[in-house]
Amino acid sequence: MTETYNDSLIADTMETLQSNNYNIYFNDALAEVARFIEQGKYSRFFVLTDENTGKYCLPLLREKLGDADFDLIEINAGEESKDIDFCIGVWKMLIDFGADRKSLLINLGGGVVSDLGGFAASTFKRGIDFVHVPTTLLSQVDASVGGKTGIDIDSIKNIIGTFTQPKAVFIDYEFLKTLPARQILSGTAEMLKHGLICDAEYWSLLKESDLSQPTGEMVYKSVAIKNKVVLEDPHERNIRKSLNFGHTIGHAVETYSLINDEDSLSHGEAIAIGMICEAYLSYKKTGLSLDELNEITDVLMELYPFYQLRDEMNDELLEIMKKDKKNLSGNINCTLLSKIGQFNIDNICTSDELIESLQYYASLN
Amino acid sequence: MTETYNDSLIADTMETLQSNNYNIYFNDALAEVARFIEQGKYSRFFVLTDENTGKYCLPLLREKLGDADFDLIEINAGEESKDIDFCIGVWKMLIDFGADRKSLLINLGGGVVSDLGGFAASTFKRGIDFVHVPTTLLSQVDASVGGKTGIDIDSIKNIIGTFTQPKAVFIDYEFLKTLPARQILSGTAEMLKHGLICDAEYWSLLKESDLSQPTGEMVYKSVAIKNKVVLEDPHERNIRKSLNFGHTIGHAVETYSLINDEDSLSHGEAIAIGMICEAYLSYKKTGLSLDELNEITDVLMELYPFYQLRDEMNDELLEIMKKDKKNLSGNINCTLLSKIGQFNIDNICTSDELIESLQYYASLN
Ligand SMILES: NC(=O)c1ccc[n+]([C@@H]2O[C@H](COP(=O)([O-])OP(=O)(O)OC[C@H]3O[C@@H](n4cnc5c(N)ncnc54)[C@H](O)[C@@H]3O)[C@@H](O)[C@H]2O)c1
Ligand SMILES: NC(=O)c1ccc[n+]([C@@H]2O[C@H](COP(=O)([O-])OP(=O)(O)OC[C@H]3O[C@@H](n4cnc5c(N)ncnc54)[C@H](O)[C@@H]3O)[C@@H](O)[C@H]2O)c1
Ligand SMILES: [Zn+2]
Ligand SMILES: [Zn+2]
Repeated sequence: MTETYNDSLIADTMETLQSNNYNIYFNDALAEVARFIEQGKYSRFFVLTDENTGKYCLPLLREKLGDADFDLIEINAGEESKDIDFCIGVWKMLIDFGADRKSLLINLGGGVVSDLGGFAASTFKRGIDFVHVPTTLLSQVDASVGGKTGIDIDSIKNIIGTFTQPKAVFIDYEFLKTLPARQILSGTAEMLKHGLICDAEYWSLLKESDLSQPTGEMVYKSVAIKNKVVLEDPHERNIRKSLNFGHTIGHAVETYSLINDEDSLSHGEAIAIGMICEAYLSYKKTGLSLDELNEITDVLMELYPFYQLRDEMNDELLEIMKKDKKNLSGNINCTLLSKIGQFNIDNICTSDELIESLQYYASLN
Repeated sequence: MTETYNDSLIADTMETLQSNNYNIYFNDALAEVARFIEQGKYSRFFVLTDENTGKYCLPLLREKLGDADFDLIEINAGEESKDIDFCIGVWKMLIDFGADRKSLLINLGGGVVSDLGGFAASTFKRGIDFVHVPTTLLSQVDASVGGKTGIDIDSIKNIIGTFTQPKAVFIDYEFLKTLPARQILSGTAEMLKHGLICDAEYWSLLKESDLSQPTGEMVYKSVAIKNKVVLEDPHERNIRKSLNFGHTIGHAVETYSLINDEDSLSHGEAIAIGMICEAYLSYKKTGLSLDELNEITDVLMELYPFYQLRDEMNDELLEIMKKDKKNLSGNINCTLLSKIGQFNIDNICTSDELIESLQYYASLN
């Protein structure tokens, strides 16, 4: 992957997007970080990385920052770090470094770093400013935009968090060059989702492309879609729920895998499973045609490794779904599709329906 | 105290106050809680108490709630419970009880319960609704109004928290009947502060009253003052800082005592010390007259037990002040008085000045 990533597909100029009182920069994004800091609004700044982004991404950022002085906070790589214990570690380091209310936290990493760093910052001294510099495809097209912060407790994903907007997001495709192929594909799942829920044309483009190498235009397009949705509905009262397509079941599978598998599924791999199951539910409940179900299934099955779902897992999966914060009063709620490019929110699904959809996936082997 | 609390001093009718999108109820406040719940906005509700409020206050609330069904979460009594570990405990119980986004948390207790419960609720599933039913004088006149939530880490007070408004506050003086005298006096310190920072007449009334038994009118008056201040400046950019009078030094003394003393100071006892020291700084720096300094010192020394401050403690106290979230870039910032009833914010104080003020207090023995 590292070698084959195709530079020429990456666009040169892409307009800055306006989000909820902050900008999303694409052009010369790391230089924008430096400019942002030079404005001098902050007394100090801190950079949060994980082991990998400390190694692969920090040098690129440091180059642009010149001799600006900052303290570094590094966490282990992986979802296990998005836990309250690591969060306490970040808080304590901010205390020890003497961070004050005018300090800035720069989250340099994937969704784990931005979710954890966003939460830590939004609650430190009742909230200090933070910005995201997303370094995975997933965090570029999804996690860094929308103002959700979150950490896990006992492997329950994002059970604790806040809605807090970053002060800016800086998206630099350069970072993707060192990203392993499996992580690229994890982000691709969210891009496919963006097409499925609200842009049939984009979906068509994606399914005909080499998705192991999404282009800069595609990344930009996905960020623009996500940004539009969250701007219209920042607190997830209605249309933002469209982004949950694939996530009710996908999150449960992801949590299950996190608890039970040595080499657990990536977010995107789990969401791909979730999208297949929920496409099946869409076919059963909200009018998705059989052809479209097959199309979605084929595209996703070709891109993502098959994961063995066994009937014995169903109870645990359903239990996890019931604890999911999206669900109310024990009812399990899915965002489904009425056709490709059109979502349908708030579909309560029975245990039987959910199990049937899991069995549909299992039968694809 | 329990026996002598003077019922007749408690006013019968006091208008509901409007705060930041929520009401503060005084009349028949517990019946209002029941009414609030009956509106049916919530799928479930939970009551957070500590050992004492579970024993003394919950029965009164339960009586009004009739057969409404709720789950109870109880923490130990005392500041030690306002810690991240107890917070995690509250989160886990909410998870285990199956709390969803439409759940309500009722914080029945003093400032520890409302600060911790407010923080836990404001971050659970990215925020569920909560209301406060304050049961200490301190939490009635201070902690329950203003939208600050917070927890301590390593005994650093309120280092983690959010600005999140409750959906309502219900103030019932009845609860004060079981409150120990020492806790009454803890709340009185904040009432005196309200007079000192913005109402000379109220200060005069208070200093001539028996402050071991503040009246309902006084409580109401103090809540009204605090509410006015926080409504004008919810995020503490300017005039809300007036409420910090006595708190820069007071918080440090409180933290010190929490770490070092077996029987640590109450919040109000520490703030009384802080107010004496900061009145001294006001005399030195912002024009408070010597007569007024003496008046403030006399009133507070008569009400509160003397606490031994020794020179050896100064370094640790200054260290704590530097970590205080109110302070920027290592500068220590105090709200002072220019006269009784008039505050003066953003006074940077040097270590020498702060130590001199501590020595002033120490010399009062
Ligand atoms: N807040 C939101 O709206 C939102 C949306 C989607 C997902 N998420 C969260 O995001 C998380 C997943 O994000 P993720 O997939 O980015 O995970 P991640 O942050 O764990 O990154 C994946 C792996 O890639 C490594 N890495 C990151 N950048 C790299 C680079 N440039 N080169 C080489 N290696 C690099 C990381 O160290 C890690 O090992 C999940 O916790 C999910 O819940 C949040
Ligand atoms: N959020 C804010 O704006 C704000 C403002 C001021 C103080 N605070 C915080 O409030 C906390 C102190 O509050 P507090 O003094 O209420 O402490 P607290 O909650 O610990 O209560 C003091 C004691 O009184 C007991 N108690 C409570 N109600 C009782 C009753 N009706 N009868 C008998 N016993 C009762 C408690 O169990 C406890 O032992 C501190 O942590 C402080 O930081 C917050
Ligand atoms: Zn996702
Ligand atoms: Zn106080």
